[in-house]
Amino acid sequence: MSILVVGSVAYDGIKSPAGSVDRVLGGSATYFSISASFFTQVRVVAVVGDDFSKEDEQILRDRKVDLTGLQRVPGKSFFWRGEYNENLNEAHTLATELNVFEKFEPQIPDAYKDSDYLFLANIDPVLQMGVRNQMSKSMLVGCDTMNYWINSKPNELAEILKKVDVLLINDGEARMLGKTASLPRAAQKILAHGPRVLVIKHGEYGATAFFKEAGMHPFRAPALPVEEVVDPTGAGDCFAGGFMGYIAAQTELNREVFKRAMFFGGVMGSFAVEKFGPERFKTLKRSEIDARFELFRELSHLED
Amino acid sequence: MSILVVGSVAYDGIKSPAGSVDRVLGGSATYFSISASFFTQVRVVAVVGDDFSKEDEQILRDRKVDLTGLQRVPGKSFFWRGEYNENLNEAHTLATELNVFEKFEPQIPDAYKDSDYLFLANIDPVLQMGVRNQMSKSMLVGCDTMNYWINSKPNELAEILKKVDVLLINDGEARMLGKTASLPRAAQKILAHGPRVLVIKHGEYGATAFFKEAGMHPFRAPALPVEEVVDPTGAGDCFAGGFMGYIAAQTELNREVFKRAMFFGGVMGSFAVEKFGPERFKTLKRSEIDARFELFRELSHLED
Repeated sequence: MSILVVGSVAYDGIKSPAGSVDRVLGGSATYFSISASFFTQVRVVAVVGDDFSKEDEQILRDRKVDLTGLQRVPGKSFFWRGEYNENLNEAHTLATELNVFEKFEPQIPDAYKDSDYLFLANIDPVLQMGVRNQMSKSMLVGCDTMNYWINSKPNELAEILKKVDVLLINDGEARMLGKTASLPRAAQKILAHGPRVLVIKHGEYGATAFFKEAGMHPFRAPALPVEEVVDPTGAGDCFAGGFMGYIAAQTELNREVFKRAMFFGGVMGSFAVEKFGPERFKTLKRSEIDARFELFRELSHLED
Repeated sequence: MSILVVGSVAYDGIKSPAGSVDRVLGGSATYFSISASFFTQVRVVAVVGDDFSKEDEQILRDRKVDLTGLQRVPGKSFFWRGEYNENLNEAHTLATELNVFEKFEPQIPDAYKDSDYLFLANIDPVLQMGVRNQMSKSMLVGCDTMNYWINSKPNELAEILKKVDVLLINDGEARMLGKTASLPRAAQKILAHGPRVLVIKHGEYGATAFFKEAGMHPFRAPALPVEEVVDPTGAGDCFAGGFMGYIAAQTELNREVFKRAMFFGGVMGSFAVEKFGPERFKTLKRSEIDARFELFRELSHLED
């Protein structure tokens, strides 16, 4: 079933111990939609400037991503420049140029309003709420956020968290949002006031899903021990894309589907880091995804 | 089959966000042997002073740990005082009093020489080598070390690593020993010159086993998301005790046994942190261990 993502389509300049790129296609909605497109039909709402190239548009079109909701306005696209040192879990931002993204007001095309699944990528929680209210019929709503919004708009964030089903954030964000160093306690606090599933992404250590439902144990999915992480940019969005995309492709939603979605999230994240930008996905095949899913199982499962 | 551990039996003073204790039984050989004793017969070689109490000796005796090799000499037992802040993965050492441990020279009683399994807990690699040479018939040798020895005795450590089968260390130690921030690369380098299995313990994120054998994938075991970690002291040694103890209780050694050993290591570590010192193990039952093993499986396994 179709999934709508609202977020950023941008350009990134990235430096890592493996090398650097001056300007590659990036943005949360880009990574999410490319990743999810391997599982289901994806629709994008985002804004780009007049510097957005045909070649980069084609990367999304090649993945059959619906770009009806991609607004094009005069000016430059959102640009981010960042650097990773040896600790690849942490990006150092060198420059953030919001450009056309500064005045982004997500408009949901009528043709998108029947989307069964919705993912609110990391944007202002006020905009997330605006989108959420336009899409009241979605079966499942996923959401991301970041430290910036946790600090600057805690009340607006609290409101949108009441209206989403799954929140996907990383360790640092979970600790900040839950106001405790203990991830299980942070999870309890976040779930008490919001989503029914919280997915905490641990970078190279995998991810843990916590469930609001009483008595339902957490579930922990591994990450692939990757020898050379070329570029971690977008890995979290690719996790979300694999997670939500897999769920959207299923006929029912239960604990087992969530568990497999965690695995597929990890799988897509593991491909993302292999090359700069979304490069790896240009040649990726579904059979490679399924093979890596089996590898993840072998990495973590006992025989019966 | 029987397992011999050589390491420290000590007293600890511990402060954590959950409270504090002035003086409890501690030491690597203590935690290892208590943990391993739930799986197999354990023998200890260590040294204590004349302050070592009957009550604390009884904790080990209650676990049927063989104390023939526990040397008692005039003076005070090894004492460590440490503190954990909100980040429970890291201990801040406030005091280390080596006392009788300063002149520790491990003597292996004749009755111990037929031990099938050997664990060299975290002591001077020169002493580890001395023990290793006395125990040349052991089927499987496990080893621990720490940053202090990696820095101060790299050559001696390199020598003993050639003579052990399994090295169990944490993330920081693996990065330091492998001289790279990438854990998979560090693992490759460490395995190239030493053990055939490297277990890297990730604290709350579980642990990964890397294998020297070509083409053998790593294996990742989860940790339990524990809401309140009361005291992390000894969790790594309890992991090693569960890991080695489980292996020693099996009739053969293969990848599947190593995988289950990783799970039992995590299980024993998860009990260790629930109370100060070795307190939790005084009442622990084998049935609780097996139940938690099943919980670990549920935490990480997909249905078929």
